[in-house]
Amino acid sequence: MKAMSVNVTGDEKALPGVRTISVARFQNRSAAEGLDRVAVEEPLEIQLGFGADGARQHRSISVTMRTPGDDFDLAAGFLFTESVIGSPNDIQSIAYCGDPSRPGFGNTVRVELRPPVRFDPALLERHFYTNSSCGVCGKSSIEAVHAARTIARPASGPLHSSVIHTLPGAARQSQQIFESTGGLHASALFSADGQLVLLREDVGRHNALDKVIGSLLLENRLPLDGHILLVSGRVSFELVQKALMAGIPALAAVGAPSSLAIELARTYGMTLIGFVRDGRFNVYCGQERIVESR
Amino acid sequence: MKAMSVNVTGDEKALPGVRTISVARFQNRSAAEGLDRVAVEEPLEIQLGFGADGARQHRSISVTMRTPGDDFDLAAGFLFTESVIGSPNDIQSIAYCGDPSRPGFGNTVRVELRPPVRFDPALLERHFYTNSSCGVCGKSSIEAVHAARTIARPASGPLHSSVIHTLPGAARQSQQIFESTGGLHASALFSADGQLVLLREDVGRHNALDKVIGSLLLENRLPLDGHILLVSGRVSFELVQKALMAGIPALAAVGAPSSLAIELARTYGMTLIGFVRDGRFNVYCGQERIVESR
Repeated sequence: MKAMSVNVTGDEKALPGVRTISVARFQNRSAAEGLDRVAVEEPLEIQLGFGADGARQHRSISVTMRTPGDDFDLAAGFLFTESVIGSPNDIQSIAYCGDPSRPGFGNTVRVELRPPVRFDPALLERHFYTNSSCGVCGKSSIEAVHAARTIARPASGPLHSSVIHTLPGAARQSQQIFESTGGLHASALFSADGQLVLLREDVGRHNALDKVIGSLLLENRLPLDGHILLVSGRVSFELVQKALMAGIPALAAVGAPSSLAIELARTYGMTLIGFVRDGRFNVYCGQERIVESR
Repeated sequence: MKAMSVNVTGDEKALPGVRTISVARFQNRSAAEGLDRVAVEEPLEIQLGFGADGARQHRSISVTMRTPGDDFDLAAGFLFTESVIGSPNDIQSIAYCGDPSRPGFGNTVRVELRPPVRFDPALLERHFYTNSSCGVCGKSSIEAVHAARTIARPASGPLHSSVIHTLPGAARQSQQIFESTGGLHASALFSADGQLVLLREDVGRHNALDKVIGSLLLENRLPLDGHILLVSGRVSFELVQKALMAGIPALAAVGAPSSLAIELARTYGMTLIGFVRDGRFNVYCGQERIVESR
């Protein structure tokens, strides 16, 4: 096996979500050693501190596999979209915890709720384990979203079709890690006139969206009415749910939406757009917001 | 808006994972009403029955968003890859539960464990909520896999590079729902000489793999040494973990692997292959199994 010429630029510090590893490349019936950049996946544990002074409790409430970076945004966004918190004022502090000299430091975030904000540990369990006693359905999932969360019908002015066509290209220009590794999902928030507000990448598409929402939550910029969100892949029920929590009135995707994503978007009056590529897109609901540009 | 010509074939009964919905298509500065097929996403609740006769307990242990179809396989595969069961003999029965006339019937599966098989409810929680007290890391995730599961180093003979190149095309020929909707992940098991054994599709990539593993578990065909698994997208830590549980010695993907997927595959001696497309692929570990075909 012959060594390939290896091209490594010094961007790894600039891109903490990327790791360079050795690889064997097979092409044209020959193999060559080389280097490849891969997206970093590491666990993030979110711990929550809650309760009155003197009776303070701490509990691990989630472990998610994510790409390191913007971890405080991810934690804040997760807590907001799961309805654990309702505003940035509910958070007293966010910090990494543990011993900085030990491996794994930076993979545990502790969020202290500001008293008297309450937390009911049963809340998250209800999200994961329904009490349906035989018979969950898409409708009950939508009802569960409604029961557990306060969702306003998102408000928005018109969206021009010419702007929608430009979104994937604009997002790709900012997708540093994906370009390098091909291994990440992106979530990009745009203003209604197509200006990129914020883009985040992650191995988990839900994490990428939680990072966007958490960042804007901590800057007290929610709800995001008048904006449009672009996601790099497909649209699941859970992505629509998170976007609705942030008040986002329009969600566009390069890929396809699922049946239940469409049903949830319809229920709450969101504009849901799929297959934004090659100069075309499909609108699954909320078409009244879209203005055809000529 | 002018109506487009609508082409609906009668395959929806043959493909329960597909739903036809109305859509507005925007292209070339014009919009037209039409129909689109989307992948169905619905919740599946897995309930577990366990304990001695007379002290039988039932508990909801998971709700996952999945594409309906092969639900018993999905439940069995999930329980096996989460180490709740170790063999098909641990299962006494699998059935849908609830009232068939009510909406949502078919979305709850009850698996009765065969006494005296034990179940510790804390087991699943340990998978989700670590007791790490500040400091989870990739290494601790790998150790957690090792502690919670019995994983043998997968065995396999040689894999020919010419066979690897053919896998995505062979899988695509069997991907009925994806071709129709563009909305699904696929997981396809092949023999070492490239013959397709089984392919499953799902909105969730972990579900697609659990369906493959569960189907073969119920036929008592695990471990799957001597096989190669192809996944349609990217490779996460969790996909490698599930494949290892089933004894699969080689995992190939059309997309990129994550850093922790590679680390876990290296730890257990799995061959991990990425970017299988356009006549090339990258091997991240376990290259010694691959024979260059001339």
